[in-house]
Amino acid sequence: MGFSKDNLTGFILALLSSGFIGASFIIKKKGLRRAAAASGVRAGMGGHAYLLEPLWWFGMITMIVGEVANFVAYAFAPAVLVTPLGALSIIVSAVLAHFILKEKLHKLGILGCVMCIAGSVIIVIHAPQERSISSIQEIVNMATQPAFLLYVGSVMVLVFILIFYFAPQYGHTNVLIFTGICSLMGSLSVMSVKALGTALKLTFEGRNQLIYLETWFFMFVVATCVITQMNYLNKALDTFNTAIVSPIYYVLFTTLTIVASIIMFKDWDGQSAGSIISEICGFIVVLSGTILLHVTKDFERSSSFRGNYTPLSPTLSTRLCSGNGESLKHDVEEGPSSEEIGYFKFTLDDVTIC
Amino acid sequence: MGFSKDNLTGFILALLSSGFIGASFIIKKKGLRRAAAASGVRAGMGGHAYLLEPLWWFGMITMIVGEVANFVAYAFAPAVLVTPLGALSIIVSAVLAHFILKEKLHKLGILGCVMCIAGSVIIVIHAPQERSISSIQEIVNMATQPAFLLYVGSVMVLVFILIFYFAPQYGHTNVLIFTGICSLMGSLSVMSVKALGTALKLTFEGRNQLIYLETWFFMFVVATCVITQMNYLNKALDTFNTAIVSPIYYVLFTTLTIVASIIMFKDWDGQSAGSIISEICGFIVVLSGTILLHVTKDFERSSSFRGNYTPLSPTLSTRLCSGNGESLKHDVEEGPSSEEIGYFKFTLDDVTIC
Repeated sequence: MGFSKDNLTGFILALLSSGFIGASFIIKKKGLRRAAAASGVRAGMGGHAYLLEPLWWFGMITMIVGEVANFVAYAFAPAVLVTPLGALSIIVSAVLAHFILKEKLHKLGILGCVMCIAGSVIIVIHAPQERSISSIQEIVNMATQPAFLLYVGSVMVLVFILIFYFAPQYGHTNVLIFTGICSLMGSLSVMSVKALGTALKLTFEGRNQLIYLETWFFMFVVATCVITQMNYLNKALDTFNTAIVSPIYYVLFTTLTIVASIIMFKDWDGQSAGSIISEICGFIVVLSGTILLHVTKDFERSSSFRGNYTPLSPTLSTRLCSGNGESLKHDVEEGPSSEEIGYFKFTLDDVTIC
Repeated sequence: MGFSKDNLTGFILALLSSGFIGASFIIKKKGLRRAAAASGVRAGMGGHAYLLEPLWWFGMITMIVGEVANFVAYAFAPAVLVTPLGALSIIVSAVLAHFILKEKLHKLGILGCVMCIAGSVIIVIHAPQERSISSIQEIVNMATQPAFLLYVGSVMVLVFILIFYFAPQYGHTNVLIFTGICSLMGSLSVMSVKALGTALKLTFEGRNQLIYLETWFFMFVVATCVITQMNYLNKALDTFNTAIVSPIYYVLFTTLTIVASIIMFKDWDGQSAGSIISEICGFIVVLSGTILLHVTKDFERSSSFRGNYTPLSPTLSTRLCSGNGESLKHDVEEGPSSEEIGYFKFTLDDVTIC
């Protein structure tokens, strides 16, 4: 398998990240339940009791730790390896929900978990080596190669067309508009996060990169991309049902990120055809597993709804930030939705505690 | 990928086999429908009009061609490669049913197809090379090595216990008894078929193996194993619903066959750990895809039933050879069930035309 030390570090960090993020949803949900039981008012109904619940805050901290691990993982291993492993957080949360929250996992959901694991193993086995980068200038060189500039240009043009032409007309009827915008921006976010992460890693290793203007430029790019991505993700979730947005977003975001990484970091250079095809197949398997988990989670939700909760209007559950503190999302869903997988998982929660 | 010429031949034959077998179900079903329309009596209701329908016979021939291709494939490529590719016939038949018979494929069924293909590609990429065998004596040496004798011994003991102790008591309540017997025998069938196929291949190449007693011994083993396997498969299908028997049988049969092949032909010798793990993952993916296709085919069947057919008693559809010529199976099902995948697909149809 010939795993380099850096790849291994990135791989372990990505696994830890998925574990923390997957667990954080369960801990937070347990906190919400406990707060609801104590105060008699559910967060979805406008209660804020969860803010006094230590368990909820513990879940919040778990999630932040997971996000940081994910950020650092990008500095060590190729995005082609780190990004798809984000799917494992759904498994962690689905399995924990089954055992801790006693939420029954659908049999096809188990199949989805098995597929995500099998696909991830295939990806890990065939993952390319991370190139060793010694300065921010090297990253700038990579980012300014014609192929990647073409990619960035195409993404910008597409995003502008989507925002200014399609969004006003079809944004509220076609789920692909808002989801497409945040996926396109997401791929640029991850690339800039990787650049920034590498720069910070070099700085910690003693080669200070903060003296270069380029490092600060990447920081600016990260902020811009993340804010745009966050904004349109919330619009998508505000307009459409999470169960529809999540798988589409996961597929688009992960695919575009991998494409961007292959162009910018030339991840596939020097890899055999067999390895590349295996990676693509592994990726398809992870995507299929994720879709299966999401679709069947929906099966369960509709039934667990009837059993455990007072029925809510279905339109309520499609809205993310309904202005009553904690979003309904946390009450309604069984685990992390895919939009919380990958690097920008925190976005949703930043919004929901507004 | 370093595919040897023999592996490639076996791979192409396995693909052709799946194509023919998958198509044969659709052709036969079209024949049955046409015969029913012409005579006004459906096969499931006791009609024999399909025997006069050329299309039905054309489907039958297509299937035999597919079976022969499958048999020959085993002579060229390792069972680890040929056996899992049998799953592709379900895809062929599901896709053809969608376009030709206008039977709607469930969305999760499409996901199942994608997984079967992705898993197959991974298996093909990492498949071991077929060892070149120059005489039947070599096969005898492989079959008499301690590890394989231990496997055969264990299988025989298990089969005897299942047949004489468990089958009379639990055979009609536990689906694993009959299915287990035919899967265990199935793994020995494939091994002996491979031995016989290799001997015939050598004979055609000019090195006559028919002069050796061993070749005739393998022929006897093939006959014994196939008859036992066929017998218990029919018992399983006669007792339980096809939708339950099929995926269990496919998983058990394919897994045991691969285990047997690894022990007897040492398929994994000289392969890297990465390749072996990839193969296992690819195999898990194909299995998951097959299960998904079967489960969702069931979703569709229950709904298409209401639309296209007069409702039948559900107990009728669980019986294979109900004594009225053509089995109900062909009317009720959308495609080949898994028990018809792999080498012994013909068994069912031999029975149904009894």
